[in-house]
Amino acid sequence: MIGAGNMATQLGMALLEKGHQIVQVWSRTQQSAAKLASKLNCPFTTETSSITSKTDIYILAINDTAIESVLSQRSWGDTLVVHTAGSTSMNILAPYCANYGVFYPFQTFTIEKKVEFDHIPICIEANTPQNLEILNGLAHSISQNIRLFDSNQRQQIHLAAVFVCNFVNHFYTIGEKLLTEKGIDFEILKPLILETASKVIYQSPESSQTGPASRNDKVVIDKHLAMLANDPDLKNLYSLLSERIIQTHKS
Amino acid sequence: MIGAGNMATQLGMALLEKGHQIVQVWSRTQQSAAKLASKLNCPFTTETSSITSKTDIYILAINDTAIESVLSQRSWGDTLVVHTAGSTSMNILAPYCANYGVFYPFQTFTIEKKVEFDHIPICIEANTPQNLEILNGLAHSISQNIRLFDSNQRQQIHLAAVFVCNFVNHFYTIGEKLLTEKGIDFEILKPLILETASKVIYQSPESSQTGPASRNDKVVIDKHLAMLANDPDLKNLYSLLSERIIQTHKS
Repeated sequence: MIGAGNMATQLGMALLEKGHQIVQVWSRTQQSAAKLASKLNCPFTTETSSITSKTDIYILAINDTAIESVLSQRSWGDTLVVHTAGSTSMNILAPYCANYGVFYPFQTFTIEKKVEFDHIPICIEANTPQNLEILNGLAHSISQNIRLFDSNQRQQIHLAAVFVCNFVNHFYTIGEKLLTEKGIDFEILKPLILETASKVIYQSPESSQTGPASRNDKVVIDKHLAMLANDPDLKNLYSLLSERIIQTHKS
Repeated sequence: MIGAGNMATQLGMALLEKGHQIVQVWSRTQQSAAKLASKLNCPFTTETSSITSKTDIYILAINDTAIESVLSQRSWGDTLVVHTAGSTSMNILAPYCANYGVFYPFQTFTIEKKVEFDHIPICIEANTPQNLEILNGLAHSISQNIRLFDSNQRQQIHLAAVFVCNFVNHFYTIGEKLLTEKGIDFEILKPLILETASKVIYQSPESSQTGPASRNDKVVIDKHLAMLANDPDLKNLYSLLSERIIQTHKS
């Protein structure tokens, strides 16, 4: 396991749980390498030159920007090498490896929160049918939800994820901040947050849209804009999004 | 039940299910009044002059902008009158009613999707302790989650809801659109959407933040901006939000 961040931790634990052996953890920093290695019951190293060659697969679960740098620091022989990055093409691996692919568990991971992999889409891609078959088997050992996408499709999926996960979570942060300012606990938002997400499992987001902008209720929109007068950036964001919703539901 | 939209439908059905009788439905349009009345097993009217006086409570589940207009069209005697609007002050009722309050089930409602009320926060407010007690009893008959907030606090809660529900749902719509453009099914986003929401039930939104902006990964951010080149508004939105996340996680 090359990397010891959110992805490496959650994927490593899922693999271990399903009976795979993690042979070794590599990370740039001693602390994070040691921490993950102890979770995965394996040795660790911080030197790329000390990365073992006795493994069936190298999983690069590191930042997109670090992939090429790590790849160039040693030779990988005939061993299958995959990266786990949404927005990085598979071909970045071609100059460095004979057998390569992408193994992209499509979920939001943080180190502390354990994730059940059973239904997580695993997006796989490989340079040969044989390697794809190996990745398919590995993916099936941890999830029932395997998808074959090329690098272009995977990039688009990652872009969509930034909106439905990263930006959504930022709006949760804004919601919490707005309530904290008035001494109200974030707790009250939780049933709404869960229902908003659950709704689009069963009906389209467009038919789920509610709120002042969806009914073009200028009175409420103007009230809210006035309440945001002391935060021009947030006020601007509110305007932009309300206008988008008004346009979407007009057409 | 004054109104026959999303809120009137879901609240009416929840009250009926818990043994309350809905005496009559009023709505401006015959079609929506008849539709809800048939769900609630009661007569309906489209004339404010024909609204019955034989009821314990009038529930105004109508647009914020319609409340005063409807209130002014008849007299309400001593009967308790409540509105269900997040961003409208309780005092709007004062000129028209002797006994009044607010009964605000804090959730996103659409007509078709049935909602379980048991854990929905019901925010109540009334002009007298006696009326508050009545609303408290009514609220407890459909939910275990009752909150006392004044109109200012309720407005702030509604503002927060626009971010964590309405704007969030708009991002689900954007996610769907981005995938549809490349022939990819929205289905693949669902586990991510659910996990993103579930995470903040157990940990703070700030500690849940992931994605390129949270790690200030300019390479991925620039790739995504390039992918949005043909949609300048969406590209602008991506920039604004990424910058906000970068700032939040820097400080």
